[in-house]
Amino acid sequence: RINSDRLWDSIMEMAKIGPGIAGGNNRQTLTDADGEGRHLFKRWCEAAGLEMGLDEMGTMFARREGTEPDLPPVYVGSHLDTQPTGGKYDGVLGVLGGLEIVRSLNELGIKTNHPIVVTNWTNEEGARFAPAMMASGVFAGVLDQADVYSHVDKDGKKFGEELERIGWKGTEKVGDRKIHAFFELHIEQGPILEDEGIDIGVVTHGQGLKWLQVTLTGKEAHTGSTPMPKRRNAGLGMARVIELVHEIAMDYQPDAVGAVGHMEVYPNSRNIIAGRTVFTIDIRSPEKEVLDAMDGRIRKGIDTICEALDIKYQIDQVGHFDPVTFDPGCVKAIRDAAERLGYSHRNIVSGAGHDACWINRVAPTAMVMCPCVDGLSHNEAEEISKEWAAAGADVLFHAVVETAVI
Amino acid sequence: RINSDRLWDSIMEMAKIGPGIAGGNNRQTLTDADGEGRHLFKRWCEAAGLEMGLDEMGTMFARREGTEPDLPPVYVGSHLDTQPTGGKYDGVLGVLGGLEIVRSLNELGIKTNHPIVVTNWTNEEGARFAPAMMASGVFAGVLDQADVYSHVDKDGKKFGEELERIGWKGTEKVGDRKIHAFFELHIEQGPILEDEGIDIGVVTHGQGLKWLQVTLTGKEAHTGSTPMPKRRNAGLGMARVIELVHEIAMDYQPDAVGAVGHMEVYPNSRNIIAGRTVFTIDIRSPEKEVLDAMDGRIRKGIDTICEALDIKYQIDQVGHFDPVTFDPGCVKAIRDAAERLGYSHRNIVSGAGHDACWINRVAPTAMVMCPCVDGLSHNEAEEISKEWAAAGADVLFHAVVETAVI
Ligand SMILES: NC(=O)NCCC(=O)O
Ligand SMILES: NC(=O)NCCC(=O)O
Repeated sequence: RINSDRLWDSIMEMAKIGPGIAGGNNRQTLTDADGEGRHLFKRWCEAAGLEMGLDEMGTMFARREGTEPDLPPVYVGSHLDTQPTGGKYDGVLGVLGGLEIVRSLNELGIKTNHPIVVTNWTNEEGARFAPAMMASGVFAGVLDQADVYSHVDKDGKKFGEELERIGWKGTEKVGDRKIHAFFELHIEQGPILEDEGIDIGVVTHGQGLKWLQVTLTGKEAHTGSTPMPKRRNAGLGMARVIELVHEIAMDYQPDAVGAVGHMEVYPNSRNIIAGRTVFTIDIRSPEKEVLDAMDGRIRKGIDTICEALDIKYQIDQVGHFDPVTFDPGCVKAIRDAAERLGYSHRNIVSGAGHDACWINRVAPTAMVMCPCVDGLSHNEAEEISKEWAAAGADVLFHAVVETAVI
Repeated sequence: RINSDRLWDSIMEMAKIGPGIAGGNNRQTLTDADGEGRHLFKRWCEAAGLEMGLDEMGTMFARREGTEPDLPPVYVGSHLDTQPTGGKYDGVLGVLGGLEIVRSLNELGIKTNHPIVVTNWTNEEGARFAPAMMASGVFAGVLDQADVYSHVDKDGKKFGEELERIGWKGTEKVGDRKIHAFFELHIEQGPILEDEGIDIGVVTHGQGLKWLQVTLTGKEAHTGSTPMPKRRNAGLGMARVIELVHEIAMDYQPDAVGAVGHMEVYPNSRNIIAGRTVFTIDIRSPEKEVLDAMDGRIRKGIDTICEALDIKYQIDQVGHFDPVTFDPGCVKAIRDAAERLGYSHRNIVSGAGHDACWINRVAPTAMVMCPCVDGLSHNEAEEISKEWAAAGADVLFHAVVETAVI
């Protein structure tokens, strides 16, 4: 078993970097805080005797040599970046859980045939720069590196330039690694495990997602002196699309979810009818057909709404992944580990996207989940217990070691 | 008649300060650009031999002496601040129209019994700091000076501190002036005069207004992994309130308008259900009963919406004025002037709020309006013709002079 105190202490230490305002973290990707978190992780890895690699997307690879160095490594990890109002565990548990495995192997003097590589994927959250899971997407060949370098944040800063600025742009070509298997430990971010009192989620599938960025263009005008029939209100249009997305998601739930979390209003003055709004629709489903059906209904609905309000629209898909079926062998390794260790477990579908979803396209992959309090995530109040973290890391430990020994 | 070229040139000169991005202006109150605009106005006033006064709200008073200096002055003016994406004429025409009157009187060697004071009221727009018509509201004793000093903009900067920072906080006590009459020239900001091909709007009434700032508090959570029934979505709540305001306004139009132009979303991330939204409802009507009825329906509706979504709400009234009936004598002076000068005219209700609406509570007041293209205002594309401006200033000239001569 791993050392749960050491794991917990490391998580708490990392949480000091980029503190939030309510007990969580604001360590968004490619900010100075992200850079600081990376330095701490690197120091820990080097202290554990790992050899550091860094690719052109800024993804960090910390390698523990195997007895057969030519065998492809077993990868383990997640991400250290957070939402602007993120929790202490989302992503961090997976990276530091990976580090804890290596520390435990060192302590126990265990050698594995395959090398083990602990990974910190850049910009998993997609909060500052869309899309989410950006570096793992480039690694898997689904996203184009030159394209994502040009993506901008709200202040117009480019991903590629910010990566250089914080000093974490490596020289290794992205995707140039052979992966024997990839395992990611993550908090559930949903309520199922806690509600059912189960220790371990064996993640068999992941929901698909679409992010549709919508720009509505009406006409700025005075809120007081413009007659109601003359208005071309892009704010009202946005409101109707938000309701539409909700209604469609309700039609398909529990097999779908949908919401709008990102909204910009121009010029955003109390007495100006909004001339332009920009917002992102987030829809998800474990069924590709459902996701496509929602997408179709939303596009048709936006057309109808905009026609009625005499406003123009543009829809840009800024994020997308199909539903994922994880590798049966890796899934079995996780289930077997939970069984062996005596943890209660159940199959589960990941509601969130994860780096594992992309890596699954290029290597056998699976995920372990542990519960989180009230299913709450993407909230500074995100919480887990030390025991839940330990159980997850134990299962990860056994699955990884089993896979890394021939 | 006034010198229309000189008036137009001055307007175009002022428009160079705080240029917008699309031909209009961003000269929001208490910004450096506002300070620069004030300096230019002051230079022009001094060149015209006027004596400058400045009160504790930063309102500028430029006095042309009367032959009987002890008589209370006739005031004329409007505001030089703009919306973030404002036009070149909204407010500016009224201030520089007042200046043009004085320049013409000087040129013609006309003396008036009453002094004439050209006024630039601080923060008429209410874009950066709510409420609108702030300085005239304090002048009229409706708003509390200490209270409005503490109002903050989106960056948390205080009105009182910003007024000092730009160097335009005067020492004169606010409201300590006797006003014989106040006249304000303004563009209509609505489509009626242009549609009907009429030169002059004789403003008999002004709509009442309420600004209700609504704060909805739900719970930040993951857009992907949070089941639909567990959501407490403050973004969806905002969308429903925006639709509600629109529906209620449609029920009462053409006797009412309503919209939400200002919206803030927290934490505003694509994959976080909004935990908090803050937005301002703007409702108006020329009938107090209608305004009150709308207010009541909106409050009831917000309660119902929030109950259904399990979110909390707070409603703060951040702006309010009752419908206004302007002074019959002043209104007649304007109508007579239009008649005498041969301009077509009609009675009109102001859809927007104006400093005149507050000053009307403490002194006989009325307004002159000229058309604007397509009724468009609070938009950088706001446009008027030189002839429309000249007609408005001519009528203002005659009404003021008639009132300023015993
Ligand atoms: N795990 C996680 O929160 N990832 C962010 C991408 C997403 O929105 O699902
Ligand atoms: N005239 C004008 O646009 N004033 C701003 C206050 C309002 O919103 O009516």
